[in-house]
Amino acid sequence: MKIAVVAPGCTLKQEAAERVQALADERGDCELFIHPQCFLSDGHFAGPDEARLAALREVMADASVDAVWFARGGYGSNRIAEAAVADLPDAARTKVYMGYSDAGFLHAGFHKAGLECAWGPMPQDALRERGEEAIRRALDWLVGRDASTIEPEIEAPAMAYNLTVLSNLLGTPLEPDFSGVDLAVEEIGEHLYRIDRTMFHLTSSDNIRRVSRIRLGRVGDVLENEPVFAGDEVSIVAEWCSRSGIAFGGRADIGHDTGNRIVPFGSKNR
Amino acid sequence: MKIAVVAPGCTLKQEAAERVQALADERGDCELFIHPQCFLSDGHFAGPDEARLAALREVMADASVDAVWFARGGYGSNRIAEAAVADLPDAARTKVYMGYSDAGFLHAGFHKAGLECAWGPMPQDALRERGEEAIRRALDWLVGRDASTIEPEIEAPAMAYNLTVLSNLLGTPLEPDFSGVDLAVEEIGEHLYRIDRTMFHLTSSDNIRRVSRIRLGRVGDVLENEPVFAGDEVSIVAEWCSRSGIAFGGRADIGHDTGNRIVPFGSKNR
Repeated sequence: MKIAVVAPGCTLKQEAAERVQALADERGDCELFIHPQCFLSDGHFAGPDEARLAALREVMADASVDAVWFARGGYGSNRIAEAAVADLPDAARTKVYMGYSDAGFLHAGFHKAGLECAWGPMPQDALRERGEEAIRRALDWLVGRDASTIEPEIEAPAMAYNLTVLSNLLGTPLEPDFSGVDLAVEEIGEHLYRIDRTMFHLTSSDNIRRVSRIRLGRVGDVLENEPVFAGDEVSIVAEWCSRSGIAFGGRADIGHDTGNRIVPFGSKNR
Repeated sequence: MKIAVVAPGCTLKQEAAERVQALADERGDCELFIHPQCFLSDGHFAGPDEARLAALREVMADASVDAVWFARGGYGSNRIAEAAVADLPDAARTKVYMGYSDAGFLHAGFHKAGLECAWGPMPQDALRERGEEAIRRALDWLVGRDASTIEPEIEAPAMAYNLTVLSNLLGTPLEPDFSGVDLAVEEIGEHLYRIDRTMFHLTSSDNIRRVSRIRLGRVGDVLENEPVFAGDEVSIVAEWCSRSGIAFGGRADIGHDTGNRIVPFGSKNR
């Protein structure tokens, strides 16, 4: 089992790479290849678009690589996502792609192109408190498809997205078909009024209205609303679901935290 | 000339209302009706959706009202915009609607419905430093269509939007036709990486790609990017215009400030 790590958005911290490498070595059931591109830095990004795209295309085309693991989120994968799925080599179709947050731009375009994707923890999560749990969960799924790592209430086909990322990919060439999808969403570091605005945007989409239901993951580090917003993230999501005729399925066990579970995209299997 | 002020988003400050009333009285060429709804408060909003919608519909249907002036932005007009343009009374078509920022949701839906809209200063701007200039400019245009108040480089038909608001109305029933539009955009209180992401979203839209050009207003109170973003708001907007085949027309004289100029929507006249 060979897992390649590339950074389509922001730079991976060296310390995170070392911890993840140590955990993989300790297991002995997988080989981790952390692409040197992960440590490049060009302003906000882990190297210029060309370097991030080249590293991603390199591991996609490598038939010896079984899984591509996105190093971290931040921002930037949208800048290379459309090019990443152009003229796909055969080897790109025989592997799985995992990450979350900003990686949702890639998930969207990759799933649309027929590649196997999964929402799940990323190497940079090693630096969170109890981050090893998240890394072990990710490796348990990548290496052995351990069913206990999967978000427990999934009704396949499923997808998971960060709310703001999803809002920003609607109407772009990356937008996948949401028909019948069990859609889990989560958010981090936003005001409640912005979550309300994003839910307005999402639930106005005819494509999003074709989901089987929306479930709400954790909404972390909510910024202070001035004045206090009446309601919370659950009432906001429930209201917009109600207004748009989408079933609200309650909570989902995902989020920007070490409890973040795996959501295999579009899978018919648990 | 009767101008009605309603607050489709957040609550108008009493002090702002008093200053604007005094400026209107001093002119003697217009009658200002500040709807009591402007001072309601319900969590984030100037009263519940029903109250904000009812006040807006009331002044829209009032044949004695020549202009509807949105009291301020903040957030919330999207929650009532679609209902506001349903079954339009005739009187709604004989007046102009002015505001900016969050009011963009109304501008979009109203313009699409054939109503006359304009981007321009709002009553709450009276509280900004030298805010009287902005209020005088708005009244000079509302009362006398003073050409000197208009954004000087407009090539009609034109529109102006806050970037984040525009991003959040794409794909919704409010989205207007951007064909041939001279589109001015501005932003306030965002990180550069978010402006980059929003520009990706906007310029991926086939509808937006039909504009005659995009011009960039002022981008105020930019939040600190960590790490430092390579480039600035001008290079970001220019790059996404270049990537999407949209003409970049340079700067526009609009923004969340007292220099904010008028942009009449879709007008063929200066």
